[in-house]
Amino acid sequence: MQISMFLPNKVPVRVKSLHTNPAASTAKVAAPKWAQKTITLPPQKRGCHLITSKIVKEIEPELCGFKCGLAHLFLHHTSASLTINENYDYDVRDDTETFLNKIVPEGPSAPWKHTIEGPDDMPAHIKSSMFGSTLMIPITNGKLNMGTWQGIWLCEHRDYPTSRTVVITLNGI
Amino acid sequence: MQISMFLPNKVPVRVKSLHTNPAASTAKVAAPKWAQKTITLPPQKRGCHLITSKIVKEIEPELCGFKCGLAHLFLHHTSASLTINENYDYDVRDDTETFLNKIVPEGPSAPWKHTIEGPDDMPAHIKSSMFGSTLMIPITNGKLNMGTWQGIWLCEHRDYPTSRTVVITLNGI
Amino acid sequence: MQISMFLPNKVPVRVKSLHTNPAASTAKVAAPKWAQKTITLPPQKRGCHLITSKIVKEIEPELCGFKCGLAHLFLHHTSASLTINENYDYDVRDDTETFLNKIVPEGPSAPWKHTIEGPDDMPAHIKSSMFGSTLMIPITNGKLNMGTWQGIWLCEHRDYPTSRTVVITLNGI
Repeated sequence: MQISMFLPNKVPVRVKSLHTNPAASTAKVAAPKWAQKTITLPPQKRGCHLITSKIVKEIEPELCGFKCGLAHLFLHHTSASLTINENYDYDVRDDTETFLNKIVPEGPSAPWKHTIEGPDDMPAHIKSSMFGSTLMIPITNGKLNMGTWQGIWLCEHRDYPTSRTVVITLNGI
Repeated sequence: MQISMFLPNKVPVRVKSLHTNPAASTAKVAAPKWAQKTITLPPQKRGCHLITSKIVKEIEPELCGFKCGLAHLFLHHTSASLTINENYDYDVRDDTETFLNKIVPEGPSAPWKHTIEGPDDMPAHIKSSMFGSTLMIPITNGKLNMGTWQGIWLCEHRDYPTSRTVVITLNGI
Repeated sequence: MQISMFLPNKVPVRVKSLHTNPAASTAKVAAPKWAQKTITLPPQKRGCHLITSKIVKEIEPELCGFKCGLAHLFLHHTSASLTINENYDYDVRDDTETFLNKIVPEGPSAPWKHTIEGPDDMPAHIKSSMFGSTLMIPITNGKLNMGTWQGIWLCEHRDYPTSRTVVITLNGI
């Protein structure tokens, strides 16, 4: 019965790939695997940065062993963010930084009460919640399964660059 | 000991449901299952669209076999987004599109450098990062465990409708 | 081979921790565990609220049994949100509420068509998609692995406080 679940009689026409562990209910098949790493990204200037290759390089030894799974990235900070966006034209990253600065007031006229850590700190916190500090990306056949034009961005929202910690958790079969 | 972890002596009063695999440490119990599909959503006009039933229809044969788990949706694009929001009144989706257009400048007066793909392209990238391109939804007793008024939205941010690819990964017991 | 995947010869210098289940392919090791709970958070006034300790208290009996895993939080509502942000200064939460109210128009001059549930309802839906209603947090050695200054926030976007339901799913080894 569990096997039939992964081999449905009526496969939707639009399904392009289907990875399953049909024999998972037997003792012969490997149980799902977990790997977790904490990596440190070097300091980057304020703005949006493409970090796909940096991330992949760190997890490649583990990643290649997963046929199907999920990769979770979790940024340990509240003044930077992780997002997925265009991986080709640098201007897209620059325009996104322009947008963030336009939408979140900064400086003497900004209405923030939390100013003790500098004028760029409270805007950084807000931007961090707007884009989020966590990503989940599917793994297929040992690779991150992203679209052709997708890349992983680290958005640094503080003026003074600092290194940033990311906890990466891989789970799959 | 592992069993006791899933059968705590003091169950919090507010817990309404608890699904566990207490015997997972024995060889008799099925290991967690994985399923992954790539589906294609048909082109939709610019705006927010309720796609819950389309998504459920695609994964139903697999979904019904999970007692407890997580469903991950990953959009393969950087000019559209996935979000969870109200599933009843069409006006909510329309108003959300109004908001996005209000907040992200578009056209000759917009400050974007990336204009080569049309005036709606850079705004689309920004909106994609605002709402995100990935969702994770709990699975309970073979169904997506969402609130009464929650639905899955595909937000199309480009003027010209194109089909959109979503990688769906199911994991659970 | 699967074991070597979790014990790579060349461990990246910047890796600080690595949790694996290298022997997962043998029958002797416990399969990954799942736990799922539905909890109810008490009504909170409009604004951003730190709920880390409330969440941890609810899941602590299960959480402590996971050496490595992921904790998923899913809010069952479309007029509130979950986000991760600063856990120390109350002003950061207050300033974030100020930002949300500044960016999303509310009241007679707002352009919303969906007004039947009150002037604060449509803005609440928009804010819910801006910050999102779902979080995924790594688990390491029985604890949520967040940064020093990170906390879990419930952002209540409605004027009238109501209790809020959160489905929490734990998965790991």
